Amino acid sequence: MKSCGIIVEYNPFHNGHHYHAKMAREMSGAEVVIAVMSGNFLQRGEPAIIDKWTRAEEALNHGVDLVIELPFAYAVQSADYFAAGGVKLLQALQCDALCFGTDNHAEMDYKLFGEFVNKNQTKIDEAYQQIKNNGLSYPQQMTEVFRKLYPKNGLDFSSPNHILGLSYAKENATYEKPMMLYPLKREQAGYHDTTIYQNFASATAIRKAVFSDELDQIRQVLPTQVAIDLVNSATVSWETYWPLLKYKLISSSIIELKAIYQMKEGIEYRLQEAAKTSDSFQAFMEKAKTKRYTWTRLQRLATYSLNNVTQQEIENSWNHSFIQVLGFTEKGQRYLREKKKDLALPLITKVSKNLNSELAVDIRSNQVYQLGDHRILEQSFGRFPIRIS
Amino acid sequence: MKSCGIIVEYNPFHNGHHYHAKMAREMSGAEVVIAVMSGNFLQRGEPAIIDKWTRAEEALNHGVDLVIELPFAYAVQSADYFAAGGVKLLQALQCDALCFGTDNHAEMDYKLFGEFVNKNQTKIDEAYQQIKNNGLSYPQQMTEVFRKLYPKNGLDFSSPNHILGLSYAKENATYEKPMMLYPLKREQAGYHDTTIYQNFASATAIRKAVFSDELDQIRQVLPTQVAIDLVNSATVSWETYWPLLKYKLISSSIIELKAIYQMKEGIEYRLQEAAKTSDSFQAFMEKAKTKRYTWTRLQRLATYSLNNVTQQEIENSWNHSFIQVLGFTEKGQRYLREKKKDLALPLITKVSKNLNSELAVDIRSNQVYQLGDHRILEQSFGRFPIRIS
Repeated sequence: MKSCGIIVEYNPFHNGHHYHAKMAREMSGAEVVIAVMSGNFLQRGEPAIIDKWTRAEEALNHGVDLVIELPFAYAVQSADYFAAGGVKLLQALQCDALCFGTDNHAEMDYKLFGEFVNKNQTKIDEAYQQIKNNGLSYPQQMTEVFRKLYPKNGLDFSSPNHILGLSYAKENATYEKPMMLYPLKREQAGYHDTTIYQNFASATAIRKAVFSDELDQIRQVLPTQVAIDLVNSATVSWETYWPLLKYKLISSSIIELKAIYQMKEGIEYRLQEAAKTSDSFQAFMEKAKTKRYTWTRLQRLATYSLNNVTQQEIENSWNHSFIQVLGFTEKGQRYLREKKKDLALPLITKVSKNLNSELAVDIRSNQVYQLGDHRILEQSFGRFPIRIS
Repeated sequence: MKSCGIIVEYNPFHNGHHYHAKMAREMSGAEVVIAVMSGNFLQRGEPAIIDKWTRAEEALNHGVDLVIELPFAYAVQSADYFAAGGVKLLQALQCDALCFGTDNHAEMDYKLFGEFVNKNQTKIDEAYQQIKNNGLSYPQQMTEVFRKLYPKNGLDFSSPNHILGLSYAKENATYEKPMMLYPLKREQAGYHDTTIYQNFASATAIRKAVFSDELDQIRQVLPTQVAIDLVNSATVSWETYWPLLKYKLISSSIIELKAIYQMKEGIEYRLQEAAKTSDSFQAFMEKAKTKRYTWTRLQRLATYSLNNVTQQEIENSWNHSFIQVLGFTEKGQRYLREKKKDLALPLITKVSKNLNSELAVDIRSNQVYQLGDHRILEQSFGRFPIRIS
């Protein structure tokens, strides 16, 4: 069975995601669409608005055949790591193609770009070393590096989806059998848009509507099931976890904070001080913000802190990857059966306690996520893949 | 100026405490009554129902002249350590006498008992070693030890106030100039009583009434100011901090939990497991409870965990004791001035950031306590002693 992968977050699932799954199938001619989806904490360092099992079920009802969890150690990361995890899992699943959204670069040859980067990594690193202290942001620096080395494409590293696309392409080119790449032009709603269009809206706009109790204004951009879930299920945000993060930052010693993944350069002092005097996550972020740290980087640090994650645990997770199945349709299940013997990573269809060590970060982050609302069910143990017939 | 000390918790302050302060003055003939009071976490491993500054003010309005804070490292401890801290501070303050409540042993010669223990500590230790594995509780074992070695007094180690009295006596006898001891028979309400009498009630009964919104039934056992404070100020209990403790136990690795003061013998596994499946502190305690661990010992472990306290930090606090003043009357202030040059420990009338290391446990526990309610004011920095004229 021919398959096409998509790497997603679904925060929450909306019509644009439905369209993406549909187009992935159409463009690639694949029989099976595989979504590698972030779990309960997301790339930009946020808790998912709805838990991963609910989001997986929504996806399975709207064009996806198989949902695999992207582990925390890859999901809550900058584009390169996020992409590395997603591509690793799709490759392990013997996936034939990858379809990803791109903002204004659907015409670009991503494959060529990926091959170029793989051949010229030393040159790229050298060029980066020369300008890395020029005071610009990392995206701006990367734009500059590639303007010099790869002039034929006007690469722009400030568009989040495009950056991810480039990262997928780079990563994919490192494999023996790269997947076919299908960039998909986004229709209407850009990543950061907060306006709601007729039938599409960005996830950002939808979350905003949910938390300001204006769900009625966005029903038309959501599948019916999702609209119902957003009312009936627990919806959480960073503010939900703020009392716990505040407690964590206040009750930890500086030495303990220093042990948190990515906590360096003295930022631990700044976070602790900001926590003491803030009454909301928003206020905390505004106080902690510096030129040196982007909002997203700080949010990731907050997520690592909340989940008490260390460098060693992240590396341990990288070294012990699994294909954790959140759900499948009949077709997705058939695909798994067909490929079972050729999978490059061990398959998990039920988390058992003897994976406590390998899955430490994922299990812990699931438990912390569950503290956000008493209606959130157990996220790890005793859960079987969702099966949609 | 002649002074009489009392060692107290005031959880909350009630008529019985008012009577205690009054009798301390009368029995000792002292001009100044000094209360050494637990801060925001108490001997039995609980958060104080009202913050320490409010409790200090209530005491100063009802017979106490000077309120000194008993540091966390002494306060949240079994009787011997609690007594050691209280007596140490009173001795450092050149206190002449000590008046303490006793349940049914007001006629006992505590001084003689203290001297006996000091002379015979080796014998006592030996006798204890012989029976320490007999399966009885520590209070029962101590009763047995003293029944053999000190037969003239029918000592009973199961009454909390009496145990404290014995501990004060032992500790006091180790000093060059022991304080005069004034045991005070409790009127009517015993420590564990939950019934409310005409004008006296146990603190336990009062807390119960507060948290079941039955304050009207206990107004007659409280000074008016306290009754008002219990309505207008933030009142907290273990349930208030349960979400934070649950998060702490769930988000910490076993290695981190093992580093908590007094966490040993594998109890960390038990506490973590109990936390995962409990929705209240009460449920958690009932699940965690074993024959080996008394309720109080478990509550102290919970308090150490909540405040992330290590063995090293406790020892550091023991080695750096201060006389931290929470408040005084005019007379109390005059007493401090008079003794200023002879104080055996450094005096703190304002916590400054350069004491961050010595006072780490106290500052942190104050910050954690403050998380219980947004109405709780900053507890350490920028606070001056309360002055009642």
